[in-house]
Amino acid sequence: MSSSAIAFARQNHRRFLDELKALLRIPSISTLPEHKDDCRKAAESLAAELQRIGMEHVRLIETEGHPMVYADWLHAAGKPTTLVYGHYDVQPPDPLEEWVAPPFEPQERNGNLYARGAVDDKGQVWAQVKALESLLATGGLPINVRVLLEGEEEVGGEGIAAYVASKPPELAADFALVCDTEMFAPGLPTLCVGLRGMIYTELEVRGAKTDLHSGMYGGAVPNPFVALAQMVAKLKDEEGHILIPGFYDGILPPSEDELAAWRSLPFDEEQYRIAEVGSRTLVGERGFTVLERTWARPTLDVHGMPGGFTGAGAKTVIPARALAKVSMRLVPGMTPAGSFALYKSYVEQIAPPGVEVEVRLIHSGDPCLVPTDNRYIQAATRALHEVWGKETVFIRSGGSIPIVGDFDRHLGLSSVMMGFGLPDDNLHAPNEKFNLTNFALGIESLIRFLEEAGR
Amino acid sequence: MSSSAIAFARQNHRRFLDELKALLRIPSISTLPEHKDDCRKAAESLAAELQRIGMEHVRLIETEGHPMVYADWLHAAGKPTTLVYGHYDVQPPDPLEEWVAPPFEPQERNGNLYARGAVDDKGQVWAQVKALESLLATGGLPINVRVLLEGEEEVGGEGIAAYVASKPPELAADFALVCDTEMFAPGLPTLCVGLRGMIYTELEVRGAKTDLHSGMYGGAVPNPFVALAQMVAKLKDEEGHILIPGFYDGILPPSEDELAAWRSLPFDEEQYRIAEVGSRTLVGERGFTVLERTWARPTLDVHGMPGGFTGAGAKTVIPARALAKVSMRLVPGMTPAGSFALYKSYVEQIAPPGVEVEVRLIHSGDPCLVPTDNRYIQAATRALHEVWGKETVFIRSGGSIPIVGDFDRHLGLSSVMMGFGLPDDNLHAPNEKFNLTNFALGIESLIRFLEEAGR
Repeated sequence: MSSSAIAFARQNHRRFLDELKALLRIPSISTLPEHKDDCRKAAESLAAELQRIGMEHVRLIETEGHPMVYADWLHAAGKPTTLVYGHYDVQPPDPLEEWVAPPFEPQERNGNLYARGAVDDKGQVWAQVKALESLLATGGLPINVRVLLEGEEEVGGEGIAAYVASKPPELAADFALVCDTEMFAPGLPTLCVGLRGMIYTELEVRGAKTDLHSGMYGGAVPNPFVALAQMVAKLKDEEGHILIPGFYDGILPPSEDELAAWRSLPFDEEQYRIAEVGSRTLVGERGFTVLERTWARPTLDVHGMPGGFTGAGAKTVIPARALAKVSMRLVPGMTPAGSFALYKSYVEQIAPPGVEVEVRLIHSGDPCLVPTDNRYIQAATRALHEVWGKETVFIRSGGSIPIVGDFDRHLGLSSVMMGFGLPDDNLHAPNEKFNLTNFALGIESLIRFLEEAGR
Repeated sequence: MSSSAIAFARQNHRRFLDELKALLRIPSISTLPEHKDDCRKAAESLAAELQRIGMEHVRLIETEGHPMVYADWLHAAGKPTTLVYGHYDVQPPDPLEEWVAPPFEPQERNGNLYARGAVDDKGQVWAQVKALESLLATGGLPINVRVLLEGEEEVGGEGIAAYVASKPPELAADFALVCDTEMFAPGLPTLCVGLRGMIYTELEVRGAKTDLHSGMYGGAVPNPFVALAQMVAKLKDEEGHILIPGFYDGILPPSEDELAAWRSLPFDEEQYRIAEVGSRTLVGERGFTVLERTWARPTLDVHGMPGGFTGAGAKTVIPARALAKVSMRLVPGMTPAGSFALYKSYVEQIAPPGVEVEVRLIHSGDPCLVPTDNRYIQAATRALHEVWGKETVFIRSGGSIPIVGDFDRHLGLSSVMMGFGLPDDNLHAPNEKFNLTNFALGIESLIRFLEEAGR
């Protein structure tokens, strides 16, 4: 830990934090068209910073949606090359009224930095950039580095997926370094070695040709919301079992060793229920622990049901249309295309009388598993041990980072998923935060990891 | 038909129509707080017009919500007194994009006047006011008239209900004249003698204490939208049968005579499906015709399911809360209080594991039946025959006008429900309209009815 880069990072920590706040003030919400300019602004500001710290060939790579940011530094002759990945786009902040401070006005409270994007993923991207700055300012990078940041992770990442699939020479590398995951518990260094995949769909139900008065017509005409509810009730039962025929076929369960390792993690389901979830009980498939349910089992969720009357008070309308935003998480052994086909065919079959049904695939990503025996994972465990003073745990995540699968499939890169979020960081929810200690030690971990990877 | 009042109405028809357009331009949407001032503006403009045409004691009666308008003219010594009722508030116009012309910019097209409130109920209120003007301008009213207009019909009519329940002396009358219904078919004079009641509720389901990321948590925590869907699916089956235990107990079916009369009405279910509804098939309870399903059977509808993510694209959130706007229509033999109690107790019982449920009653109204053998109903049939040249048909409506029950219960008034809407007038829906011939003949019918009632 005698690295001069680490000394640099410690001396400049307050500045790093202030710069991160500036990035967090840009509402780069990729899913909302009205924030398109903000996404570009965030990309430009990252490009400017990469240029300033001494990265080379800095440029924006345009996509159909929001631009990517590319930079490299390739002067570590004979050393391996890493592809550093992160994303600058964020989720919408609604419901706004539940934020203690406004989502795009970062606030330090209780040792955390609160803002939309604080941990997912701007804070972790900034940790990457600041690790690079600290190394560049104190002698240069110990390995060759390419940086590729995207602005569409929260909307499916189509631009980067197409770019990676085209196998551009400027992405040639030995492994990827992805900072978009979390630590299993405070102070416990963690590498994520498995991700669920997903399909995100819209299920639309149409009844009458126009909205109708529920007094005049109620009882004789189809109600799309009732139909949609009846269909959703046939997708998943009250125990969390998905009812789509064939949905579970071919799933690869975790090994006995992996399950044993999960059982030894510091995890208490009742504590999780009370502190993180706050629901009356936990739910889910019988016979599986919470970690198995969220890491190794597929699931189905409804995110919202737009349409009809949603204002205050009463409107007695039978809407002509109703929509459900339905997503499914997939695990190794499943494919987005296969799962979507089963879902679509089942949904068309269970549509109640009188309504028409349309199913749309919004985006998808493959599940993935990373082998833990390669030299970069080993280098990462050494670096983490040095910074955090503990053995690294290997976990999976229930979330989906489709690009990790794409790096593997198209570029032959396995990913080191080294993340510094915490389980209660409120990702995608009000009061998202990033622990300030994790931000500081995250930068140090990344510095040490690049040094270890260069040995 | 030699009435000088009718001649006056015909001479002034164009002016009457222009005045109605001015009233329709006021967006008096009672359910939206931001239109509170518009509601008052509509009330004031009606009061000013009643004053101008010669009605007396004109005043606004304040409520907790939007004001009522009162006026009277009591100089027909020895003649009966009618309480003329209508409402100036309208439904919200959404979805806006489906209107051919903006909802508050009235437009004449194809022999109709299009605007939100054109027929429900500003156009019909204006027909009442213009009938009174025509009679006052040509010798005075043939009977005593009290006018009571409200601005909360579309939000439950709490203000007028409380006022009527207090039995104020200024509402003393012999019968009520309610213009808020429709004709069974174009050119077919119609009196409505039965209404469904209703309860309008909000069903709220709460899961986790905050919104959660569906990747991290999906599979282990309750999803309020899935829970709500599962519950709605247990409220009503795919054949339209309501599954709340005891819900149908005590229903009074229509008499054989009434059913026979309905069977002789000019009604074709397939034509109704194609022209009015436009759905793939009609739905509803097995063993009942469409008229029975909509007039004499209770039903349950979902109007919208607010909460969660409803924007474009994808947000992978498990919302902490979800809401369903659920209403039930009631028929004679059922009471709002009884039906709500059954619903509430059932809903609490079927809540899936992990969620908390809250049920709120937003508003309610009693079902009602009007006896057809009283002199005012008889007078109405004579007047309608004269204006339209056809025998009057007696129908029910599937809609709810709670005030009709209140007039009966508190003031001992039975109601003459004489309406001039048409079945395809798009009440509560985009492109609401009022047929221009019906507006003209509606005014004439009301003039003749008041004359007949005074004989």
